Amino acid sequence: MSENLQNDLFLRALKGESVARPPVWMMRQAGRYLPEFMEIKQKYDFFTRCRTPELASEITVQPIRRFQPDAAILFSDILVIPLAMNIEVEMKAGLGPWLPNPIRKAADLDSVIVPDIDSTLGYVMEAIKMTKEKLQGQVPLIGFAGSPWTILCYCVQGQGSKTFDQAKAFCFTQPEAAHQLLQKITDTTIAYLKAKVTSGVHAVQIFDSWGGMLSPEDYQEFSWQYIQQIIDGLKAMAPVIVFGKGCWFALDKMAASGASALGVDWTCSPQIARKLSGGKITLQGNFDPARLLSPPATIRRMVHKMIDEFGTDRYIVNLGHGILPNIPVENAGAFIRAVKEYHEG
Amino acid sequence: MSENLQNDLFLRALKGESVARPPVWMMRQAGRYLPEFMEIKQKYDFFTRCRTPELASEITVQPIRRFQPDAAILFSDILVIPLAMNIEVEMKAGLGPWLPNPIRKAADLDSVIVPDIDSTLGYVMEAIKMTKEKLQGQVPLIGFAGSPWTILCYCVQGQGSKTFDQAKAFCFTQPEAAHQLLQKITDTTIAYLKAKVTSGVHAVQIFDSWGGMLSPEDYQEFSWQYIQQIIDGLKAMAPVIVFGKGCWFALDKMAASGASALGVDWTCSPQIARKLSGGKITLQGNFDPARLLSPPATIRRMVHKMIDEFGTDRYIVNLGHGILPNIPVENAGAFIRAVKEYHEG
Repeated sequence: MSENLQNDLFLRALKGESVARPPVWMMRQAGRYLPEFMEIKQKYDFFTRCRTPELASEITVQPIRRFQPDAAILFSDILVIPLAMNIEVEMKAGLGPWLPNPIRKAADLDSVIVPDIDSTLGYVMEAIKMTKEKLQGQVPLIGFAGSPWTILCYCVQGQGSKTFDQAKAFCFTQPEAAHQLLQKITDTTIAYLKAKVTSGVHAVQIFDSWGGMLSPEDYQEFSWQYIQQIIDGLKAMAPVIVFGKGCWFALDKMAASGASALGVDWTCSPQIARKLSGGKITLQGNFDPARLLSPPATIRRMVHKMIDEFGTDRYIVNLGHGILPNIPVENAGAFIRAVKEYHEG
Repeated sequence: MSENLQNDLFLRALKGESVARPPVWMMRQAGRYLPEFMEIKQKYDFFTRCRTPELASEITVQPIRRFQPDAAILFSDILVIPLAMNIEVEMKAGLGPWLPNPIRKAADLDSVIVPDIDSTLGYVMEAIKMTKEKLQGQVPLIGFAGSPWTILCYCVQGQGSKTFDQAKAFCFTQPEAAHQLLQKITDTTIAYLKAKVTSGVHAVQIFDSWGGMLSPEDYQEFSWQYIQQIIDGLKAMAPVIVFGKGCWFALDKMAASGASALGVDWTCSPQIARKLSGGKITLQGNFDPARLLSPPATIRRMVHKMIDEFGTDRYIVNLGHGILPNIPVENAGAFIRAVKEYHEG
């Protein structure tokens, strides 16, 4: 923040300062809907893109060049963490993540390590430094990680799932092993995010993509207590944003956690999101990504209504989940532009 | 109800009467976790099971014989409705429903009919009569249908999906065509459920499995207004239960709809579910189906806690979604038994 950012709207919203208009960025803004991303995707496989600082930094700044949102988010993947922990992860075309040796019992944890960050994830730190050179202070840079529960889901299920029932079965039948794994992921994640902040990211976001599959009680036990450890470890170094997809039921506890902002999905109306979170913390969201398929004029109207309802202060405009691959580029542009032109009505 | 049911606990809970213990049944209780169901499944394909009254009635009573829950639910599928409407539906092993000609534009609606129920779905009415003979008044029989939105999801997407983004795209870019399709499904569903009641079911349940993928506003427009039409059409004939998976945000409107009970999933704590629904309507749910993987003693403790929190009146014990195929039969039994033994503590 001392580095003369040309646009600090995002960081000011995280601090709860009053702003002329809310900042805007989009989850997965560096993604498959962008033709310039698809060009790189055709040439390099998934983990090559993550692990090559030149590529990761280039992908990160692509949406900044095109749309000038108010924050960049470092291109990476939540599954670089299990990779660093000695858990094999592949990315299969058409299927997504695939883990050839999923964790199903306590003995499977023997080979899982809490790694040295520099030697396993140093490429992320290089990508941060390279991205900041490219950004030249235009906008702040966000670093992210998956929540320990969400990472566990993949490590146990072995692939994406509608219900992650094997991951849940592991927690419900072998809770001790589950907690061991969650603690190892948590320790790794804290060290990882601290290294990211030291390397130059201005804020961190934790994605709890599958927290909403748990009951409120199981959420506290298997997800939230570990996110709280991450917040406790990071909050003195950088603002922490927690986004729990489907975790409306936990917004009250989240608001009292020391996080600087909470992401909400589109099933929460702005009024309900403010109410559930106590009305004081900065909220981020919550445009339905599929609503970006609407005509640009409809998007503009809906974005303005959303800002009217959330209010301009303590608010970061975003989607309620990652942008979809089939969104027309001009519609993504209309979303960003609608925020910038908010006061023109 | 005038037919001398031996156990009318379920119907009394729907009326809001005071009961000694809450009734219990399980969504998908006639399903793949039952060995006797698997025996039939090996011999007959999916739609044969639905369309053959001898098979559908036998499958319906299997869980009654084994567990004696307080209600039976007629074995069928929500996709018999599009089939009757002249939309082709196949069931593919390992994939689930598959529609070779999904609806993607207004012209695709030309061949979609609001069918005569007797000639297209008469087999369901036969199955009801045959089931009632087998039940001999032991417990009430529930008939069900999918919500129009949930049916549309399959008709447009053409198969199951994590996000049903093509279904949403259809609604958001071609709302007039979407509303035409929704109205046709609604008209068919009302006639279908009326015929079921006339044939002898004691209550009907509407499954809005994918309503929780919509924002509160889009839910009103594309899902709820059609469910309301169904309630309006049925409520004078039989009690209506509405189960909207992930639809916590709509519980207030649902409670004022004339429905006799609302299903809730496990992301709502009992206290929050009572609060959101206004505290007066009967609630049904909401045990996490994956929690049936816990040891039977844990299931028993959790069920008793759930009843303590919902209260014994205006409450129907159930899961928060359908039972999973990998649940041990003894665990399903432990769930039912825990409710019956509630007062023994």
